[in-house]
Order: sequence, then C-alpha cells, then structure tokens
Amino acid sequence: MSETIAAVDSHPMNGGDGTYSYTKNSYYQKAATKAAKTRVDDVIAEKLDTKVILSSTSGNTLRIADLGCSIGPNTFMAMQNIIDAVKRKYLQSEGLASRMPEFQVLFNDHSSNDFNTLFTSLPPDRQYFAAGVPGSFYDRLFPESSLHFVHSSYALQWLSKVPEELLDKNSRAWNKGRVHYTSAPDEVTEAYATQFSKDMTTFLDARSKELVVGGLMVLIMPCLPEGIPHSRIPAGVLFDYLGSSLMDMVKDGLISEDQVDSFNLPVYTASAKEMTKLVDKNGCFSIERMDSTNPSSKIGGPVNSQACTMHLRAGMEGIISKHFGSDIIDELFNRFQKKADEFSYLLESSIKEGSQLFVVLKRK
Amino acid sequence: MSETIAAVDSHPMNGGDGTYSYTKNSYYQKAATKAAKTRVDDVIAEKLDTKVILSSTSGNTLRIADLGCSIGPNTFMAMQNIIDAVKRKYLQSEGLASRMPEFQVLFNDHSSNDFNTLFTSLPPDRQYFAAGVPGSFYDRLFPESSLHFVHSSYALQWLSKVPEELLDKNSRAWNKGRVHYTSAPDEVTEAYATQFSKDMTTFLDARSKELVVGGLMVLIMPCLPEGIPHSRIPAGVLFDYLGSSLMDMVKDGLISEDQVDSFNLPVYTASAKEMTKLVDKNGCFSIERMDSTNPSSKIGGPVNSQACTMHLRAGMEGIISKHFGSDIIDELFNRFQKKADEFSYLLESSIKEGSQLFVVLKRK
Repeated sequence: MSETIAAVDSHPMNGGDGTYSYTKNSYYQKAATKAAKTRVDDVIAEKLDTKVILSSTSGNTLRIADLGCSIGPNTFMAMQNIIDAVKRKYLQSEGLASRMPEFQVLFNDHSSNDFNTLFTSLPPDRQYFAAGVPGSFYDRLFPESSLHFVHSSYALQWLSKVPEELLDKNSRAWNKGRVHYTSAPDEVTEAYATQFSKDMTTFLDARSKELVVGGLMVLIMPCLPEGIPHSRIPAGVLFDYLGSSLMDMVKDGLISEDQVDSFNLPVYTASAKEMTKLVDKNGCFSIERMDSTNPSSKIGGPVNSQACTMHLRAGMEGIISKHFGSDIIDELFNRFQKKADEFSYLLESSIKEGSQLFVVLKRK
Repeated sequence: MSETIAAVDSHPMNGGDGTYSYTKNSYYQKAATKAAKTRVDDVIAEKLDTKVILSSTSGNTLRIADLGCSIGPNTFMAMQNIIDAVKRKYLQSEGLASRMPEFQVLFNDHSSNDFNTLFTSLPPDRQYFAAGVPGSFYDRLFPESSLHFVHSSYALQWLSKVPEELLDKNSRAWNKGRVHYTSAPDEVTEAYATQFSKDMTTFLDARSKELVVGGLMVLIMPCLPEGIPHSRIPAGVLFDYLGSSLMDMVKDGLISEDQVDSFNLPVYTASAKEMTKLVDKNGCFSIERMDSTNPSSKIGGPVNSQACTMHLRAGMEGIISKHFGSDIIDELFNRFQKKADEFSYLLESSIKEGSQLFVVLKRK
C-alpha cells in the first residue's frame, strides 16, 4: 500500500498562521466551501441512503474523509456542514432519530502537510472523532469498505507529478520558457491531460475499494467550461502571469532560463467530459451529479490583485521555493502583483461561469 | 466527547530529531519495547480470539491503537511487532490464512505532540494504513467498538493534571519544596494516588466503549513493587535529584522558592494491587495478565549518569520550561547530572526488579 508513495510529489500549502500562510490566505477556497454548502446539503438529503450506511458498518459509526484537507479552517467548515446535514436527515426520518451514528472525520493530506497546525486548531466543540491520515490520495489510504462519505475540495487539480516529457529537450512536449500548459503547444497540454487521466484512474480505483457500497463521494475542483481555451480561465491567466514574471527575472539575470525550462506546475484543470469518461471507465461509481457551476456567488466585479497574489503565494510558495530557492520569492511575487495590476483586465474578463466542477459519485 | 479535553494538561516529549529530542533519547523506552516483544507475542498467540475479531468488524480490518505514542521510533517497532504476531497467528491457523485482515494503526498522543515528525518518519515499507489521533486518552478518542487491540507503553504514568491540593497552602497535601511525592508526607502521596485512580477510571471507561468485545489491551507502565517505598524506585530517585537540583538553584537565587512550591510533576507509579482494584471496579475487562516484571534484560550494572540526564531532559524539558522558562534548562540539567554522578549509588541500588507492570486486559 505504500510502495508508490515515494513516487508522488508533495507540495504542502504554507503552514502556520503567519502573513503568507494558507490559513490566512485561502478565502477563495472558503468562498467555494460556502457556495458548495447548499449543494452538499441537497446531495445528503437526496442521495445518502442511511439504510446502506447503517447495515454496512459496525458500531454505528459514519466515517467521513476529507482528501487534500490542508490545514484548516476550510476543512473544518466543510466537515461540519456534512455532519449537520446527515444529522438533519436522521432527525427528520421516522425511526432513525434514535439511531444517530457517531461520526469520525479522517483528515487527509500529504505527510509533509502541517498536521500540527491542523490538530491544534481543531474546533474544541466538535461532535466527531478526529484523525489525520498522512499520504497521497493517489494511493490507498484507508482500509477496505471503511468510508461512507468522501469529500475533496480544490485538491484534485494537483497532479501526482509533472509529466516527464515536459522536461525532455528532445520531446515535442518540452515546455521551454513556460511553467504550465497555458499558451503552450498542443503536445504540452496533451501530456498534462494524459497525466491527469492516469492519476484520476488511480484515485478512483483506490476510492472504489475504500468506500462502502452506497457510499457517496463529493469532488469539487476547478473546471474547464465547454469550448473555452485553458488560457481564458482564471487559473490559466494567473499561471501565465507567473510564467512571464519568471521569464522577466531571467531577462534581468536573477535566475537562469534553464531553471524556468525545468520548472512546471503539476496542476491541471479538467473538463466535465474528461471526468465523465474517466468515471465511466472505472465502472464502480454511478454519476449522481456532474455540474459545471460557478465557484461562488460573488463572481464578476473588480479583482483585487493583492488578494490574488497572496492567494497564489500561499498555495505555490512551497513548490516554487523547492525549485528556485526561497530567496527569489519576495521579488517574484512583487513582479507578479505588478503584472496582475497591469493586466487585471485579463483576469477580470476571464471565464468564471462554469469554472467549478461539482461531482457526486455513488459507489455501486 | 471533547468538553473535557481542555482540562487535561499536555506535556509533549521533545520534538524533532535534535540532540535533546525524544527520538534520540528514548532508549529506556526502546529497551522496554524490545523486552516487551516476547510477552506481546505470547499474548497474541494465546489470547487473541480471531473469530471474535473477524465477526465484529466490517471489511475485515484489524484496528490497533497506540495510546501516548509520542513521535517514534519506538511506536513503529511496537506496532510492527503486534502486526507480525497477528499475521503469524493467521498463517498458522487452519482456514485463517486466506482471511488475513488489513491493518490500520491509529497513533494517538496529545494534539501538541509533534505529529509532523511522526508522520514524516513512518516506515516507508509499512504494511498498514496509518492515522494520527490527537487528544488525551483520558477522554473518548475513537468510535464505539472500533478497536481490536490497544497498546500503551510508558504513558499511563502521566496524570491528566497535578492534584489541586498540592498547590493549596492550607492543605496538608501542600507540596512545599518538592516537585513530586517522593520523600513527601503521606497526604501528598495520597493526593497523587487519588488523582491516578480518577484518571484510570476515566481511561478504562473510555476504552471499554471503544474496544470490541474480545478485543485486547496491553498496558506497559512503571510499577511500584510490593512493599517497596516510592523513594527506592528509579523514578523516585531521579525525581528527588530533580527536586533538590531545583532547590539548590533557589539557594543560589536563580529561581524563587514559590516557583518550586507551585511546580509538581504530574507523574505517578502505581502498584499491581492498585491497578487490579481499578480494573475490577470498572467491570468491563477480564485481567489476562497483571505481572510485575523487569523493564529490560539489562538491569543492574553501572548507571550512565549522562544517559539518565538526557533521558529525563527529553521527557521533562517541555513541562519544566513551561513553568520556569527555558532559560534555566541547561543550568538545571548540568546540576542534575552532577547530582546523578555524586549520588549514583542511590540510583544503582534502587529497586529495578519488578519495576514494570505488564497488564493484559480483555474486553468482556
């Protein structure tokens, strides 16, 4: 169960609770969590089969896993929402109120995630048993048929690794002068898509073993809306800013071109079609929802370039420092922010409609 | 389930892997783990009822919890021993080899424990699913009937808190000029014993809910041998050195007497009789073993005072720093080591025979 762990790259969000921490700079994820609440409530009310849950578990425990939970506080909010919705369902169903299960929440992220911060900030009034599960979700993490509800929000866009061809000078997918597939040749985008497909196949295979029959999985992730090029979605625009900020630093002699050529973000935005195909190929899940939605109710309007910068920094500082060293970080994000100011119209006009994929799968 | 968490003091072992870390200074615990291996092997071979385990769990998962695991490496060794012994039992039993369970190990310690170190040092070739469970074991930690095997080594001597009377100037149990009950009036020792009794009652009550019927619990802890005073056991001698080192620092004006008076170590060494009484009172467990044994095969012989000092520092630096500030630590342990050198005969002649309690309980 652990032999493939070493092959998976990990890029933890910034730990602790300082200025650039994920804790203080994850408001997009927070907005997404809030926006997802109503949808998750509906899913539980309509799709959760309490009979299946009750019969398939010993000790009347309902186990919920959050995959790629990072360090809070969003994960606490998301888990509480799920528990509240399940409790409502039990209280409103005849004969079930007296059989309210105990809840266990399994918080998962890479072993390099700051679990110390996660554990010390667990809500003191929580009505569930908490556990942390370290490891990549592109591997088995839990015993067979031990989970009843799986949740993952804004984690599955992270690939297990950068596709190897991007680093091969002899490949047509060599990604020279860029850090992502936005504005890259088709071969680069295809290499990313292939890696996503492999990773999602592994992910679904592992979860199909871990979820009880009838168990639900809610996946919230960035989405490429139908017919829109990658360069027109917010992530694409931001990664373009990042790539060109790095290339500006090459021009100024602060880093080498080789360093940029050999750096690629292991992040991919899939479309609803791609996901549907991969779930069908796996065969163990029925698709209960596959909606291309809006990430929050507050889309449109002016973009705060400083907030954008902090947001990207909290998520990407780790992986960038690992490759370029931490000395360049302040300079890089200063340049990034100037670019975000200068070209804010690109971000403002990017396609946010349908840029979130809300997937609900049921284990057959 | 969490309302009492805040009332439990936590005193994590020194984290990381530096000179004074628990990782590098837990060889006594390591020796104890090694010495306990054969005993644990026997317990699993003789007492583990695989039929009960198999029928009481869904998904054929065997769940093992290590309570007060600290940060490794001892916990990894202890857990591997248990799994190896269970596997042997399955392989040697007719009709069971093909029904080998999956294993999940739940590593528990206070939420202030360094779980980051624990998680990043998990054995890469482990054949079990790992999870960390933050919280005091004097509280519920796991869902009902979810555990099959509970292990705890050298953790239950830690009380949930210092008995309040020790800090009350008007009480006969006011512990003036000492940091422990060694060489203290009876009232002080009684206050400690009462606190231990309360804590163990809570502990057994929580575990009786969490263990499946037929599940086993192995508790390894310091033991006061029959008829021996607390001042003659190794822990008693060491805490006496510590108390008098602190009082020397009072005389030299480095700390105040009030500071020493208001500091007490929340640690207690119980006798087999006390434990037996508390288990009987709980009523949910049968006592399969209650042996007063030797902590390791290497007892007797000269005592290395430096090793003793490092050992005590790795375990106690946290709690001492919290009360006195970290500035006094180097000075204190220098003085402690001199005292350990000077009075090494006391430690050498202390009673090590029967100073470990090996308890095996089965959930009725």
